[in-house]
Amino acid sequence: MDISQLGEFGLIHRIAEHLKTPAAGLVKGIGDDAAVFEGPPGWEIVITCDAQVEGVHFLPESMAPEQIGRKAAAINISDIAAMGAQPTFMLVSLGMPKTTPVSFVDGLYQGFKQECDRFGASIIGGNMAHCPERIFIDITLLGQVEKGRALYRSNAKPGDLAAVSGPLGDSAAGLSLLLAPEVRVDEKVRASVLKAHFTPNPRVDLGRALSASGLITAALDVSDGAAQDLGHICEESKLGAVLWAEKVPLSQACKEVGKAAGKNPWEFAMFGGEDYELLFTFSEENQPAVQKVLTKAGFSMTIIGRMEEGDPKVRILAADGSAWNPKSTGWTHF
Amino acid sequence: MDISQLGEFGLIHRIAEHLKTPAAGLVKGIGDDAAVFEGPPGWEIVITCDAQVEGVHFLPESMAPEQIGRKAAAINISDIAAMGAQPTFMLVSLGMPKTTPVSFVDGLYQGFKQECDRFGASIIGGNMAHCPERIFIDITLLGQVEKGRALYRSNAKPGDLAAVSGPLGDSAAGLSLLLAPEVRVDEKVRASVLKAHFTPNPRVDLGRALSASGLITAALDVSDGAAQDLGHICEESKLGAVLWAEKVPLSQACKEVGKAAGKNPWEFAMFGGEDYELLFTFSEENQPAVQKVLTKAGFSMTIIGRMEEGDPKVRILAADGSAWNPKSTGWTHF
Repeated sequence: MDISQLGEFGLIHRIAEHLKTPAAGLVKGIGDDAAVFEGPPGWEIVITCDAQVEGVHFLPESMAPEQIGRKAAAINISDIAAMGAQPTFMLVSLGMPKTTPVSFVDGLYQGFKQECDRFGASIIGGNMAHCPERIFIDITLLGQVEKGRALYRSNAKPGDLAAVSGPLGDSAAGLSLLLAPEVRVDEKVRASVLKAHFTPNPRVDLGRALSASGLITAALDVSDGAAQDLGHICEESKLGAVLWAEKVPLSQACKEVGKAAGKNPWEFAMFGGEDYELLFTFSEENQPAVQKVLTKAGFSMTIIGRMEEGDPKVRILAADGSAWNPKSTGWTHF
Repeated sequence: MDISQLGEFGLIHRIAEHLKTPAAGLVKGIGDDAAVFEGPPGWEIVITCDAQVEGVHFLPESMAPEQIGRKAAAINISDIAAMGAQPTFMLVSLGMPKTTPVSFVDGLYQGFKQECDRFGASIIGGNMAHCPERIFIDITLLGQVEKGRALYRSNAKPGDLAAVSGPLGDSAAGLSLLLAPEVRVDEKVRASVLKAHFTPNPRVDLGRALSASGLITAALDVSDGAAQDLGHICEESKLGAVLWAEKVPLSQACKEVGKAAGKNPWEFAMFGGEDYELLFTFSEENQPAVQKVLTKAGFSMTIIGRMEEGDPKVRILAADGSAWNPKSTGWTHF
């Protein structure tokens, strides 16, 4: 059996099962956006890593090296944001062909640093190795969160509402235009969805505000699409969920790309991923208070689903309450 | 200009220059075996990352997946050992072709876990990505050391003695046999140097003892060969050094491989690397006390050089005090 038959998440589950051992100082191991361990007095330290591979995650011909660097940093910062933590220290491990131009590496690091500077993080170490065929960027990012205040995927309760902090689908809409250059859309629309795809905005301030509120039962960042990511909360919280497909907010640009490409734009939102908005749950009675937190942080909030007792699966419903039949599935690596 | 013209260390210096910014809570950034930042009361946290790339660092046809996993873990553990710290938490980021057998991934993780278990560390997170041509293993390892007790490369003083904790060159001798299968040596000799190459032994207990002693001015693990690694201490301590080539201890097996291959065996020790013994400096007056620490920890100690005022360069001397002319240079990636 090869790993493509098991799938990315199947493989992760298989491995995680072998690694379940309690460790001194460890607060949370495998299964969330980041691991958590004891830090300085009053603090916990969170740590995550994520790789971007040339030709798999990015195409150097369609992105400047600064953009590639910024995005590689941003997706890690987003994982720290999803924990309610403040990014602190970054390590960058690069694999590169020998013919890589020094200017490309300079550009990558400018991108890493620009994105770190936005959020007060510093690059403190890393590694360089030879990788003959393609650039391999693996980033490890640390953050800190007040003790006991980390936002996990695992504490959602039956009846909790699930909400997102902004429109989804723009990044996938942008990717669809890159993959189908013959699709014609207004230039402003194209620029808008490509920007969403190339330069995601990690929601650090919002994550910090949600953590401070004490009102959030579960949270993650939308990296795999609303359906799959709500599914991650289901798995870790051992609950089911309903997801009301057409409640998921879409930008006008996303809708226009869907129209031009002959695709249901909600598919971008449900299965596309890389939006990096936060998806979070809270009890219905706390809805007004959570709404206040979002408003104060400058974000809209849209309720898109509800947690329920049952198998850890997401039931996607159309507006009339019938099953919404997806035409494709979420992004997995294998 | 491409990165092969700048070289691995040239590239690291170039990047490090751009990243020199003080950061809250940071004790030591780029330039040592690991970065160091504030931890729980009385402790500092150290963090390092290192990658192993298929076909560059390891050949799956000559190593079992468990061996590859153990070695990838061990080289990171060795960096933590060189800081005088205790390994704690590991993150594993894998890039893999879709056709990778699940059994291979299982074997890798068994190797990671075996090596972690030896030193009380736990795997707490990671990432998996598609890398079409080859396995890319990037490991991030955390450790902890008592506040103010980390061993750096940067505090050696003029006149300090430089010593190693055991024979060098075996790993490079083993690699030379893999690269030249026609070289004939006794089977015991072959097994011994291949073991050194495939299953290095991180010196965690010794690093902890050296840290606790308070006698060590600088330390690192021998990963690039004695000459280049002493050079790293020179650079970070802003000193020169003499290195007495033939004082570097060699195993009998290393000497026999050198003889069979028609190579000066000290070249394995000086420029080969991957030995993972510790190389450390201390004032001459502390030599008897340091010797006691080594003896108590079960290690021999061999003085191989001395720090001196001057440019950050290593002068390699033969037994008669003349310059020892190397025939090759230390391993760099580009």
